[in-house]
Amino acid sequence: MIALVATLKIQEGKNAEFEAVFRELSQQVRANEPGNVLYQLTRTSDPNTYKVLEIYKDEAATAAHRDAEHFKAAGPKLGAVLAGRPEIERLTTVD
Amino acid sequence: MIALVATLKIQEGKNAEFEAVFRELSQQVRANEPGNVLYQLTRTSDPNTYKVLEIYKDEAATAAHRDAEHFKAAGPKLGAVLAGRPEIERLTTVD
Repeated sequence: MIALVATLKIQEGKNAEFEAVFRELSQQVRANEPGNVLYQLTRTSDPNTYKVLEIYKDEAATAAHRDAEHFKAAGPKLGAVLAGRPEIERLTTVD
Repeated sequence: MIALVATLKIQEGKNAEFEAVFRELSQQVRANEPGNVLYQLTRTSDPNTYKVLEIYKDEAATAAHRDAEHFKAAGPKLGAVLAGRPEIERLTTVD
Protein backbone atom coordinates (compact mmCIF):
# COMPACT_ATOMS: atom_id res chain seq x y z
CA MET A 1 0.00 0.00 0.00
CA ILE A 2 1.02 3.64 -0.33
CA ALA A 3 1.40 5.82 2.73
CA LEU A 4 1.79 9.59 2.66
CA VAL A 5 2.80 11.95 5.43
CA ALA A 6 1.72 15.45 4.46
CA THR A 7 3.12 18.36 6.46
CA LEU A 8 0.89 21.43 6.39
CA LYS A 9 1.93 24.81 7.78
CA ILE A 10 -0.91 27.19 8.48
CA GLN A 11 -1.13 30.93 8.91
CA GLU A 12 -1.02 32.34 12.46
CA GLY A 13 -4.41 32.16 14.21
CA LYS A 14 -6.12 30.09 11.50
CA ASN A 15 -6.19 26.81 13.46
CA ALA A 16 -9.94 26.65 14.07
CA GLU A 17 -10.77 27.49 10.46
CA PHE A 18 -8.23 25.00 9.14
CA GLU A 19 -9.38 22.20 11.41
CA ALA A 20 -13.02 22.78 10.44
CA VAL A 21 -12.23 22.59 6.72
CA PHE A 22 -10.07 19.52 7.24
CA ARG A 23 -12.62 17.77 9.45
CA GLU A 24 -15.22 18.07 6.67
CA LEU A 25 -12.72 16.87 4.05
CA SER A 26 -11.74 13.87 6.21
CA GLN A 27 -15.38 12.83 6.57
CA GLN A 28 -15.86 13.06 2.80
CA VAL A 29 -12.71 11.04 2.13
CA ARG A 30 -13.82 8.30 4.53
CA ALA A 31 -17.33 8.27 3.04
CA ASN A 32 -16.43 8.42 -0.64
CA GLU A 33 -13.03 6.83 -1.17
CA PRO A 34 -13.06 3.03 -0.77
CA GLY A 35 -9.37 2.90 -1.64
CA ASN A 36 -8.41 5.08 1.30
CA VAL A 37 -7.39 3.16 4.44
CA LEU A 38 -6.34 6.06 6.66
CA TYR A 39 -6.82 9.84 6.49
CA GLN A 40 -5.83 11.20 9.88
CA LEU A 41 -5.06 14.84 10.68
CA THR A 42 -2.65 15.34 13.58
CA ARG A 43 -1.21 18.30 15.52
CA THR A 44 2.57 18.49 15.91
CA SER A 45 4.49 20.16 18.72
CA ASP A 46 4.39 23.38 16.62
CA PRO A 47 0.92 24.98 16.87
CA ASN A 48 1.11 26.11 13.23
CA THR A 49 2.20 22.79 11.76
CA TYR A 50 -0.01 19.76 11.18
CA LYS A 51 0.70 16.33 9.71
CA VAL A 52 -1.76 14.16 7.83
CA LEU A 53 -1.15 10.42 7.97
CA GLU A 54 -2.64 8.82 4.88
CA ILE A 55 -2.72 5.23 3.57
CA TYR A 56 -4.08 4.14 0.20
CA LYS A 57 -4.64 0.62 -1.10
CA ASP A 58 -2.86 1.34 -4.40
CA GLU A 59 -1.84 4.00 -6.92
CA ALA A 60 -5.36 4.16 -8.35
CA ALA A 61 -6.66 5.09 -4.90
CA THR A 62 -4.20 7.98 -4.63
CA ALA A 63 -5.33 9.20 -8.06
CA ALA A 64 -8.98 8.84 -7.06
CA HIS A 65 -8.23 11.02 -4.03
CA ARG A 66 -6.50 13.71 -6.09
CA ASP A 67 -9.35 13.72 -8.64
CA ALA A 68 -12.21 13.62 -6.12
CA GLU A 69 -14.67 16.54 -6.23
CA HIS A 70 -14.56 16.91 -2.45
CA PHE A 71 -10.76 17.19 -2.55
CA LYS A 72 -10.84 19.78 -5.32
CA ALA A 73 -13.57 21.72 -3.50
CA ALA A 74 -11.45 21.86 -0.33
CA GLY A 75 -8.50 23.33 -2.25
CA PRO A 76 -9.49 27.03 -2.15
CA LYS A 77 -10.67 26.80 1.48
CA LEU A 78 -7.35 25.22 2.51
CA GLY A 79 -5.42 27.66 0.34
CA ALA A 80 -6.97 30.53 2.32
CA VAL A 81 -5.41 29.29 5.59
CA LEU A 82 -2.23 27.50 4.58
CA ALA A 83 1.16 29.21 4.81
CA GLY A 84 2.64 27.54 1.75
CA ARG A 85 2.40 24.32 -0.21
CA PRO A 86 2.14 21.06 1.77
CA GLU A 87 5.25 18.87 1.86
CA ILE A 88 4.42 15.26 0.96
CA GLU A 89 6.57 12.32 2.00
CA ARG A 90 5.75 9.14 0.11
CA LEU A 91 6.21 5.78 1.86
CA THR A 92 5.52 2.15 0.98
CA THR A 93 3.96 -0.14 3.54
CA VAL A 94 5.71 -3.39 4.49
CA ASP A 95 3.19 -6.16 5.23
CA MET B 1 -5.60 9.76 20.22
CA ILE B 2 -1.83 9.66 20.17
CA ALA B 3 0.07 9.14 16.92
CA LEU B 4 3.76 8.38 16.68
CA VAL B 5 6.02 8.43 13.65
CA ALA B 6 9.14 6.42 14.46
CA THR B 7 12.11 6.73 12.13
CA LEU B 8 14.38 3.67 12.19
CA LYS B 9 17.76 3.55 10.47
CA ILE B 10 19.14 0.07 9.88
CA GLN B 11 22.58 -1.31 9.18
CA GLU B 12 23.59 -1.89 5.56
CA GLY B 13 22.26 -5.18 4.18
CA LYS B 14 20.04 -5.98 7.17
CA ASN B 15 16.70 -5.21 5.48
CA ALA B 16 15.38 -8.77 5.27
CA GLU B 17 16.30 -9.54 8.87
CA PHE B 18 14.82 -6.27 10.12
CA GLU B 19 11.59 -6.69 8.19
CA ALA B 20 11.17 -10.25 9.46
CA VAL B 21 11.59 -9.16 13.10
CA PHE B 22 9.25 -6.22 12.60
CA ARG B 23 6.62 -8.28 10.78
CA GLU B 24 6.44 -10.64 13.79
CA LEU B 25 6.28 -7.70 16.22
CA SER B 26 3.50 -6.03 14.21
CA GLN B 27 1.41 -9.21 14.30
CA GLN B 28 1.86 -9.44 18.06
CA VAL B 29 0.94 -5.78 18.55
CA ARG B 30 -2.23 -6.20 16.50
CA ALA B 31 -3.14 -9.42 18.32
CA ASN B 32 -2.37 -8.34 21.88
CA GLU B 33 -2.83 -4.57 22.18
CA PRO B 34 -6.49 -3.50 22.08
CA GLY B 35 -5.43 0.13 22.59
CA ASN B 36 -3.39 0.16 19.39
CA VAL B 37 -5.21 1.48 16.32
CA LEU B 38 -2.36 1.42 13.79
CA TYR B 39 1.09 -0.16 13.73
CA GLN B 40 2.33 0.13 10.17
CA LEU B 41 5.94 -0.31 9.02
CA THR B 42 6.82 1.61 5.87
CA ARG B 43 9.86 1.95 3.58
CA THR B 44 11.12 5.45 2.81
CA SER B 45 12.99 6.57 -0.30
CA ASP B 46 16.24 5.66 1.54
CA PRO B 47 16.71 1.86 1.54
CA ASN B 48 18.21 1.96 5.05
CA THR B 49 15.51 4.11 6.64
CA TYR B 50 12.04 2.96 7.66
CA LYS B 51 9.14 4.79 9.30
CA VAL B 52 6.55 3.23 11.56
CA LEU B 53 3.16 4.94 11.64
CA GLU B 54 1.52 4.23 14.98
CA ILE B 55 -1.79 5.35 16.55
CA TYR B 56 -2.90 4.62 20.13
CA LYS B 57 -6.28 5.26 21.72
CA ASP B 58 -4.72 6.98 24.76
CA GLU B 59 -1.64 7.33 26.98
CA ALA B 60 -2.39 4.05 28.73
CA ALA B 61 -2.23 2.27 25.37
CA THR B 62 1.20 3.71 24.63
CA ALA B 63 2.38 2.54 28.07
CA ALA B 64 0.87 -0.91 27.47
CA HIS B 65 2.86 -1.08 24.24
CA ARG B 66 6.13 -0.09 25.90
CA ASP B 67 5.56 -2.62 28.71
CA ALA B 68 4.36 -5.50 26.51
CA GLU B 69 6.44 -8.72 26.64
CA HIS B 70 6.44 -8.99 22.86
CA PHE B 71 7.82 -5.46 22.56
CA LYS B 72 10.54 -6.12 25.13
CA ALA B 73 11.39 -9.45 23.44
CA ALA B 74 11.84 -7.69 20.08
CA GLY B 75 14.30 -5.19 21.57
CA PRO B 76 17.51 -7.24 21.30
CA LYS B 77 16.57 -8.56 17.83
CA LEU B 78 15.95 -5.02 16.60
CA GLY B 79 19.05 -3.76 18.37
CA ALA B 80 21.12 -6.23 16.34
CA VAL B 81 20.08 -4.63 13.04
CA LEU B 82 19.41 -0.99 13.86
CA ALA B 83 22.02 1.70 13.16
CA GLY B 84 21.18 3.83 16.19
CA ARG B 85 18.24 4.74 18.38
CA PRO B 86 14.86 5.31 16.68
CA GLU B 87 13.68 8.93 16.43
CA ILE B 88 10.11 9.29 17.68
CA GLU B 89 7.84 12.15 16.64
CA ARG B 90 4.76 12.46 18.84
CA LEU B 91 1.53 13.79 17.31
CA THR B 92 -2.03 14.29 18.52
CA THR B 93 -4.94 13.32 16.30
CA VAL B 94 -7.60 15.89 15.43
CA ASP B 95 -11.04 14.31 15.18
